[in-house]
Amino acid sequence: MTGFRLLARDGAARRGVLTTAHGAINTPAFMPVGTAATVKGMLPEQVAGTGAEIILGNTYHLMLRPGAERVAELGGLHRFMNWPGPILTDSGGFQVMSLAGLRKLSEQGVTFRSHLDGTLYDLTPERSIDIQHKLDADITMCFDECTPWPATETQAAESMRLSMRWARRCRDVFVERPGYGLFGIVQGSVYPELRAESAAALTAIGFDGYAVGGLAVGEGQELMLATLETTVPQLPADRPRYLMGVGRPSDIVRAVARGIDMFDCVMPTRSGRTGQGFTKRGTLNIRNARHAADPRPLEEGCVCPACRSYSRAYLHHLFRAQEMLGPMLLTWHNLQHFQEVMRGLRGAIEGGRLAAFIASFEAAEALGDIEPLAGADQGDEE
Amino acid sequence: MTGFRLLARDGAARRGVLTTAHGAINTPAFMPVGTAATVKGMLPEQVAGTGAEIILGNTYHLMLRPGAERVAELGGLHRFMNWPGPILTDSGGFQVMSLAGLRKLSEQGVTFRSHLDGTLYDLTPERSIDIQHKLDADITMCFDECTPWPATETQAAESMRLSMRWARRCRDVFVERPGYGLFGIVQGSVYPELRAESAAALTAIGFDGYAVGGLAVGEGQELMLATLETTVPQLPADRPRYLMGVGRPSDIVRAVARGIDMFDCVMPTRSGRTGQGFTKRGTLNIRNARHAADPRPLEEGCVCPACRSYSRAYLHHLFRAQEMLGPMLLTWHNLQHFQEVMRGLRGAIEGGRLAAFIASFEAAEALGDIEPLAGADQGDEE
Repeated sequence: MTGFRLLARDGAARRGVLTTAHGAINTPAFMPVGTAATVKGMLPEQVAGTGAEIILGNTYHLMLRPGAERVAELGGLHRFMNWPGPILTDSGGFQVMSLAGLRKLSEQGVTFRSHLDGTLYDLTPERSIDIQHKLDADITMCFDECTPWPATETQAAESMRLSMRWARRCRDVFVERPGYGLFGIVQGSVYPELRAESAAALTAIGFDGYAVGGLAVGEGQELMLATLETTVPQLPADRPRYLMGVGRPSDIVRAVARGIDMFDCVMPTRSGRTGQGFTKRGTLNIRNARHAADPRPLEEGCVCPACRSYSRAYLHHLFRAQEMLGPMLLTWHNLQHFQEVMRGLRGAIEGGRLAAFIASFEAAEALGDIEPLAGADQGDEE
Repeated sequence: MTGFRLLARDGAARRGVLTTAHGAINTPAFMPVGTAATVKGMLPEQVAGTGAEIILGNTYHLMLRPGAERVAELGGLHRFMNWPGPILTDSGGFQVMSLAGLRKLSEQGVTFRSHLDGTLYDLTPERSIDIQHKLDADITMCFDECTPWPATETQAAESMRLSMRWARRCRDVFVERPGYGLFGIVQGSVYPELRAESAAALTAIGFDGYAVGGLAVGEGQELMLATLETTVPQLPADRPRYLMGVGRPSDIVRAVARGIDMFDCVMPTRSGRTGQGFTKRGTLNIRNARHAADPRPLEEGCVCPACRSYSRAYLHHLFRAQEMLGPMLLTWHNLQHFQEVMRGLRGAIEGGRLAAFIASFEAAEALGDIEPLAGADQGDEE
């Protein structure tokens, strides 16, 4: 099992330390996504240099290529990808459920065809846990059905109850080892009674941490936050809480204020590859012609290499010329920005000044000299 | 003007130091190619970390995008791309001559259409020198016509004599400053008398260094080396000699033995992006299935990050999954390998053991457990 210790609280928000076989994670934490055993365009030491203490790997992608058994033979995912720190793997459920027309769901699990070569695979709670074990994930996620949005209450209930039966099966086959944890995932869409039922079912089974799944799927921030407000109080206070697939910094600060400890999202990396940069004043698109002659850094005062050593004009040039270094530098900047937000949140909770931090964060974003972020979604794979 | 000091000789081979406004370069030197103000997939500090002391920029690409005037406004190429060391720029001639059907050659210069947007440009000796000045190149190359291969002796003579008239015009407009040098380019195809005539013409004008151009264009190593053997002795011994666009390590060691001091080639970077790795035993293609489960590094004993921290299996996976980190790591390895060859050559010349070094180099390559390198050419742009 993994450990979790609370250092401070500020309202519903918590400042904690999660301990795993491969190291400790200060929470609230943001986990960069390393889908195919790499955080795209970054060396692992660069990812760690931004302040990330844990990354996420995707079971679906890794089981297809290079395969869990291959990764195990090569010493596990940490060694394979040269990331010595903690790793959380998802269960593969989210990706498999997205394969509309290519998958078949039953009580037993899911049968699907690989998007790479059409090969038929079975993914069950037992197989998902086995794969994550072979990958050597510090934190294993239960195999669940991510309830689609929108869903009627009846659909959401059926889907959630299937996930709860699967959660039991995951718990039964998970191999307990010091420093390795299994997290349950609360489902129930936006229906408070279903979320409560799900939280109770998982708590009765008992997990090392509790994720809130099925959000950031199109319901909007208001409904997401409302769901957190009713769900989070149902979760054990002494275990970490993970909001899956979220999100923008403005989502993250509000979710932290509602008691969430962990986040993951492709947004900083995916947006970085298309030239979208996150700053304190919102997002900008470095491909925009207004940056072509601008000698200023992407963000004044940012300590990332993109801001320390290069002008907006240079970054603009790299994207216009389709040079790899453009995505590399913007990804680096965005990951740095997300980690700075998390550092800010942790310090604010420690100091009992989270409300002021969020007010200041929102005031800066409201300045918005900056273009709206277009076309970036919040999936949990890259 | 730039400085050049010879430290040692071994036969025709020389060990020297070239001094420029932005630092010194130990020769024999290999210059990585940074066509569009970036060595593709590498941070400048990583390029420097391999041992590279000078990089090459391409006038043709930079004049089109972002434009020489833009680079000048932003503080010159060094500052623009965050490479504080010496930079050599080519003249644009090689690329412009390759624009078959899109360009028109006259005594005055070349008129061509941009491959990006069809805009009409004039490039003359005077304009090329002006652009390179605006880029702030430490070493400026004369604008010349790279004689196509094959060429009759008459064609080669006409082409070479045009280049010699242009060299005079380049010298006339080049702005002398301490640490900034202008190199002439010997042409004449594979005809010894024309090469001698060209060398004499350039020497009469007087340059800070002398390049051998028009080779590595399809004539083969044997003819290339034969041309060097007759041409190099015609060049002033107290100036650096630069073989443009060359080449494979096996080309480089043999050219060094014939008195060449400087090289540039896209091969390590371009091959790296397609998964081809250079090793002491020749080249391999990391995409090949035989590497899929191989826990060994790309090259035992190599100090580059790709070899220190990753297996062949992982690199294979990255290329199969089309992950950016694959080209990034292979490029890094290849640049490291080329710089190790140059370090070996410099040490061997200092120690008077170049013949033994080359024999050992050739014996290792002959072991060839390794696939032939396919599809890589030796252009001077990326």
